[in-house]
Parts: sequence; C-alpha cells; structure tokens
Amino acid sequence: MNKSVLFENPISIAATSSVCGKKEGEGPLAAMFDETYLDDALGKSNWEAAETEMQLRAAEHLKRKSGLVPDILLGGDLQSQCTATSMTARRLGVPFMGLYGACSTMALSLLTASCLVSAGVSKAALCITSSHFCAAERQFRTPLNYGSKRAPTAQWTTTAAAAALLTQKKQPPYITGCKLGRVVDLAVKDPTNMGAAMAPAATDTLTRFFAETGKRADEYTDIYTGDLGAHGSELLLQLLEKEGIQLNNHSDCGCLLFDVEKQDVQSGGSGCGCSAAVLHAHVLPKLKKTGGKVLFMSTGALLSLTSVNQKNSIPGIAHLVEISAQ
Amino acid sequence: MNKSVLFENPISIAATSSVCGKKEGEGPLAAMFDETYLDDALGKSNWEAAETEMQLRAAEHLKRKSGLVPDILLGGDLQSQCTATSMTARRLGVPFMGLYGACSTMALSLLTASCLVSAGVSKAALCITSSHFCAAERQFRTPLNYGSKRAPTAQWTTTAAAAALLTQKKQPPYITGCKLGRVVDLAVKDPTNMGAAMAPAATDTLTRFFAETGKRADEYTDIYTGDLGAHGSELLLQLLEKEGIQLNNHSDCGCLLFDVEKQDVQSGGSGCGCSAAVLHAHVLPKLKKTGGKVLFMSTGALLSLTSVNQKNSIPGIAHLVEISAQ
Repeated sequence: MNKSVLFENPISIAATSSVCGKKEGEGPLAAMFDETYLDDALGKSNWEAAETEMQLRAAEHLKRKSGLVPDILLGGDLQSQCTATSMTARRLGVPFMGLYGACSTMALSLLTASCLVSAGVSKAALCITSSHFCAAERQFRTPLNYGSKRAPTAQWTTTAAAAALLTQKKQPPYITGCKLGRVVDLAVKDPTNMGAAMAPAATDTLTRFFAETGKRADEYTDIYTGDLGAHGSELLLQLLEKEGIQLNNHSDCGCLLFDVEKQDVQSGGSGCGCSAAVLHAHVLPKLKKTGGKVLFMSTGALLSLTSVNQKNSIPGIAHLVEISAQ
Repeated sequence: MNKSVLFENPISIAATSSVCGKKEGEGPLAAMFDETYLDDALGKSNWEAAETEMQLRAAEHLKRKSGLVPDILLGGDLQSQCTATSMTARRLGVPFMGLYGACSTMALSLLTASCLVSAGVSKAALCITSSHFCAAERQFRTPLNYGSKRAPTAQWTTTAAAAALLTQKKQPPYITGCKLGRVVDLAVKDPTNMGAAMAPAATDTLTRFFAETGKRADEYTDIYTGDLGAHGSELLLQLLEKEGIQLNNHSDCGCLLFDVEKQDVQSGGSGCGCSAAVLHAHVLPKLKKTGGKVLFMSTGALLSLTSVNQKNSIPGIAHLVEISAQ
C-alpha cells in the first residue's frame, strides 16, 4: 500500500450517524446530530462508560437508518487500550477489528473497511469511533478538578461518537479511493500544540496522494482535515505551499464543529469523535448538495501520557479517503 | 466477515523473525530466536524505548531474511495508545495501520494483512508486535520496585518482539484461511486470571470456525492458542468439550515459550510478543517438519488499568489463522 488505492467498484457509505455532548450541540452544526446529551455522563457512573454509551447510541441510530446488520465492527478510541470501543464490541457481538490511529481513527476505519468490502470479505462494515472530553483530560492531561489553564494552541477534545456503514450497494455517496499515511515526526514536543505535530503528516499524505494519482486540489469541492485546529491548519497551508500546492478549498473539522471565536475551545476541536461527527453532520450533507467529490483526511497525534513524560516528540499520521457524490 | 474466510490464493508467510529478553532466552525455545538480549533495557533509558528497539531489530532481521521492502506496516502493542509500534512506524517510514487486539495482535495483524494482500492492495505486508515485561507491569499492574506478590493464575508478560512478512509469492508456508473473533465476556473481573477471561472467546472463535467451514480439529497437526496459560488452557478444553469438541492436539504459546514448572512464570507467558515469538520460534519450524496444517489463534484480554479500577469485567477476544505447510 505504498501507493494510493483507487477502487474499481466504489464503496457505498450506506448510512452515517452521530451523537454528541452539550458543548458540541451548541456549535454551528447543532441541528445535524442524531442526538445531543445535556448530561455528558449520560447517566453513567464514569466518563469512560459514558463514551461507550455514546458509541452504542450511534450504532443504534445507524441500524435504524440503514436497516442492516453489520458483519464486522472496525474502530478504536483514545482511551488506553482502546477500551471504549472494546466495551462497545462486547455489547454488539459483531466480529471486531480494533484499530488505533488516535484522532485519525475514522479515516483509518473507512479506509480499512473499504478494502475489506472491496475484497468481498465484508458485505456490511460498521466503522465507529468516539472521544469524550473528560475521559481524555483524565487520560492525557490533568484531571478536570485541577482546573489548570489551557494554552491558546491547545485543542478541545470533542465529546461525540459517530458511525458509518459501508456496503457494496449502488447507493451514493461513495468512497472511491484512499491513501494510508506514514508516521511523520518533525520533533514537536508540545502536547498542547498537536496541530503543529500533525500538520507535517497531513502534508505528506496529501502531496503523495496528488503525486501518485495525478489528481489536483482544485478537482475537489472541499478538502477536509480533521483535526489540525486553527494553528495547525495555518501550518498545513504553509507547508503545502512549499510543495507547490495551493489549497483554496480547505476546511478543518476542528474549526467546523465549534465556533472557535465564541466557544472557548482555543485552537479548535480534536479527538477521534471530531472529524467523525463532522463527516456525518457537515461533510456528507454538504456533498449531497454541491455534488462533485471531496477529500476527507483525519489526522492523529500518536502520543501517550508516558511518551510525553519521557520527553518523546509527538509522531503524527494522516489517513485519507476520497468521497464522491455520485 | 461474520463467516470464516478461506483464501482462493493462499498468502505466503515469506519470512518471520523474533528477538527476546533474557528470561525468554533461557526457556525451551532458546535456540530459535534471532537475537536474545541479556540487558532487557537494550541500552535505552526506559523500558518503553527498549520495546520499540526490539521491534526495530525484529524488522531488521526480517529485511535481511526476506530481502523485501514492505509497503505497509500493521501492528500494535500493549503500551497505552500503542506507542511502541507508533515509534517503530516513525523509524520505518512505511504506511502504517495501527491495530489493537491486546495479546491477540499477531493473529489480528496476520489476518488483516492476508485480506489486504489477497485483495491485491498490498504486495508485501509487514506484521509486527511486541511486549515488554517491565513496561507492561508499569502500565497494567504495580511498578516493579514495589515487589508485589503474584497470583498462581497470573501470567508473565513476555519480553519479545516478532515480525512476519506476507506476500503473494508461491513460497510455503501459507495462510489459507482466517476467522475474525467477537468479543466475549463471561464477567471475569480478576486481572491476575486473564486465561479465564480469554478462554470463552477462544472457544467461541474455534467452534464457529469449525461450524462455518465444516473442518474438524483432527485435521490439524497442531492447534495453538496464545496465550491462555496453563489455567486458561484447562478451561478452554472444558468449554470445548461442552460444545462436543475434543482437542488432542492443543498447545498454548504461553506454555511453550517458558518452562512453566521451572521458570517461575506462574500460569505461563502472555503479552503480544508471546504468541508472535512462538509462531516464529516453534509453530512454523515444527510445521515445516511435520507438514500438514495448523491453527494459530491468539487471544487478547481487552482491559486497561482504568477499566479494572472501575470494576469492569474483562472482555476477551480471539483471532484465528489457518496455516498450511504446502
């Protein structure tokens, strides 16, 4: 898979769903989610269980919309040892392929599922991912009760879960191609500036995709990254310009999910749930209206609390799928 | 992927490699590893970095043996957010698909890679995984310096890394089929008895594989699990008997890697590196001698320190590949 994959028979995104927390439900995409929870604990005794509950609700909405029973579940999350998704897999009882790509998980799941559906080994592949602000703060940074200050370059971990069902049906929109990313690390060590850590990986994946396929940025209605935030997006555009690529159609899911000016999310949203929810709540609805095709590229910062404490730099990765309205 | 997959064109295991720590190098398979390290830190400043170093060395041995450059890296590990493998991916610069299956990671990687090679999207897929006793103790249990007692049902996390390269070549041995497992949880809550948590999942995967393919246990030279340990293996045989399946050809990788009686590993080895190293150091060399075919089924306990502290039960999973000598 050194080269971009273009599918001979496009893969149908038969249905998508998303659910989110209170803050996400107050943002610009408020009207588009299947459910918004005013109680971020969803009645559970801890944030981690609430995250699994969100995944299960997203899966329920997907089942209602598609009427299909998946034959494989692909996904992961930010909790250590991907437990949010393992607990979902336990409840759904579907064969489970655990994936880890940090915030790039939705694109990684879509890409992997597309290959399996294209190969004919899966007929209905359920991609799922999520993140929860409070679970992530406990996992990666400081427990909420410490009330510590946040840097302006920091990103706000989204409380959301989203799911997508891929099939071989003739039913648009379609995944028509994909590019599995490489890990790129330009020695950024600041976990409060993950946009900077991930922008080089996004640049790498996008320039390779264009070089390998001969496609150009202006062929696409929109090119989405998720989630570089405002600072990381600026960096992406600068890095791409150095490669001779100008993006006039770029949006970042982290800046679409929240009103970055008003919602006090610093540089924008992040977390596996962010680009996944924006795919459902913005990317696909807009694509349906505009027609044409888009690139959806989720980015991940492959750090852990241990790796940061051990003064490692933060490796980034970006996986890309091409989605066509017809 | 509800059903077992049987490949029309079998996938070649072109090469495998393994490296291990001191204790593993004193066990029954001592002579079979590519390298054994007397210093479990491998000269690095922390155990986590040592684990990545082991993966890199395993990848080097694989390159030397196969002479091939992989076009995809698939793998994961037990460190939170799979950082050992992310750091390896950073160094290798190959497109990276992060997987999470706890100790089932090698079978999960082989299975996923087989599907990708079979679909023609990968020509040379590198599967890698590892575990490190000291990194895992810090991650999941008590730091080593506390010197806490270990339960007799506990398993010893293997210090080892192993890699395998899959291609479309005509070169035995071959992966001829696979079965992606479901998560099964019979409410075992004791993290010092993971064999009991994983045995039901192994039973589920194996009985479904036999039912779906019409194959029988006695068709195989050997049926390997990895790693249920001595206690979990006993449970597996009991659970299978209830399903009307008698296994007379079962071995567990956790009991093959160590001398369970003499090496003070309680119930046997565990960790992603265990079944992966045993595949290289025992399963494939023996298969070459005996001919025929084997089942290789790695099992994973999908717990985290947080999930245990929150009094969750431990979900288990088991992924299976069928390997044929010819």
